[in-house]
Amino acid sequence: MATKKKEEPVILITNDDGITAPGIRSLVEAARPLGKVVVVAPDKPQSGMGHAITIGTPLRMNKVEIFEGIEAWQTSGTPVDCVKLAVDKILHRKPDICLSGINHGANHSINVIYSGTMSAAMEASIESIPSIGFSLLDYRYEADFSAAIFYANKIIKMVLANKFDKHLLLNVNVPAVPKNEIKGIRICKQAYAKYKEEFDERKDPQGKKYYWLTGEFINFDKDKDTDVWALQHNYVSVVPVQFDLTNYALKKQLEKKNPFK
Amino acid sequence: MATKKKEEPVILITNDDGITAPGIRSLVEAARPLGKVVVVAPDKPQSGMGHAITIGTPLRMNKVEIFEGIEAWQTSGTPVDCVKLAVDKILHRKPDICLSGINHGANHSINVIYSGTMSAAMEASIESIPSIGFSLLDYRYEADFSAAIFYANKIIKMVLANKFDKHLLLNVNVPAVPKNEIKGIRICKQAYAKYKEEFDERKDPQGKKYYWLTGEFINFDKDKDTDVWALQHNYVSVVPVQFDLTNYALKKQLEKKNPFK
Repeated sequence: MATKKKEEPVILITNDDGITAPGIRSLVEAARPLGKVVVVAPDKPQSGMGHAITIGTPLRMNKVEIFEGIEAWQTSGTPVDCVKLAVDKILHRKPDICLSGINHGANHSINVIYSGTMSAAMEASIESIPSIGFSLLDYRYEADFSAAIFYANKIIKMVLANKFDKHLLLNVNVPAVPKNEIKGIRICKQAYAKYKEEFDERKDPQGKKYYWLTGEFINFDKDKDTDVWALQHNYVSVVPVQFDLTNYALKKQLEKKNPFK
Repeated sequence: MATKKKEEPVILITNDDGITAPGIRSLVEAARPLGKVVVVAPDKPQSGMGHAITIGTPLRMNKVEIFEGIEAWQTSGTPVDCVKLAVDKILHRKPDICLSGINHGANHSINVIYSGTMSAAMEASIESIPSIGFSLLDYRYEADFSAAIFYANKIIKMVLANKFDKHLLLNVNVPAVPKNEIKGIRICKQAYAKYKEEFDERKDPQGKKYYWLTGEFINFDKDKDTDVWALQHNYVSVVPVQFDLTNYALKKQLEKKNPFK
């Protein structure tokens, strides 16, 4: 028995909605049967934090007892800080896999760039920890995570069972429909779809202007292998993601004749 | 004269060190001869903010008179917010080019992901505005920006003079050496080089632990076409960057036999 325990994969779980969000509780539920789960997550919501790290202020962390039988820590940092702290100060080793989410709301298409959920997963991938970010297309606190839990469990199990690249990084989005309406899992590319932003201009009680970010979502990408297409057709989308942002096609072009000489 | 004025390119400048940083003043100096410059930048330092956007709180912006003859606005938002606000509420159009920086400190290799400077430039690129992020490898407030100004001017001029893709996005880093020691400009890829993070653990006056992020920079990439190599050899590095994070090689592999079925 002791030997078997030792072989259990160590599963680090974080998120960007904060440690008390139902989404991270759902991810713990999905991962719990598959290994030794440790949760290290922000003590407050961090949505839209992108790949922010905390460099100007010190960080705090506290052990909390909110998941039965699961070691859990809340930190004052961002999702990316949580991954860094977990490896250096809590696990004192790299976990076998890092999971982030389940995010309350979509992280498909260009959202991968703004997403704290995906940034935490990307941080792990940079550190050679295979990682997966999960998001459900439902922003509500009371969202139904049951289908997301089912598919998260399936995908985590598959990743643990196979030898993938150590930098494996997947962006998984689950449509907000009942489980029996989901048609399966599709491997996708990131759609070129984005928000057409506008700011809602208002006046405060002192008459000074202030602005709220708002916007309409537009899909410019007509291809059928995108995450947006898959989600619109009730598939779970899986986008393999990389952290090398070099535009190699353009690099080649520019190298042919360096125009900046 | 009026006609000629109309043809001047509109140049949006932002940064992540805040509107009062010497770096953005240097970038204004580099760009001023090349078009109509408008500055929209954070009212305080935002380093390490990654691609953060402000969604939970409203934004403020104020016109400021700190660059002679240049329209300038400070906002309470992140660098990415500044680009969005500039297009929607200040310029009421897309600028012809967006410039970000000059950052006090390196944004080569993996730093492109954490960098507020590069995220602002990326935001512009997503919005089909050609854009360039500039960084000088000197963190100090009193850094010597003269070589950086020279090369920024040269690169901006070249980008404005040529028809590049509307999503053109360049990450430019300038070594911290006198101008006469710089050997030229090299087109590069993003190095796989990163910080080996550690947290410095301390105790506050109440005896409670807190943590400062710290770390040692390690270059794992031995290729000679990386930005780190170029900078170590006193070249200005130019990395063409893209915002499509899809790992197409892995997508192809996974599609051959979808393991998640």
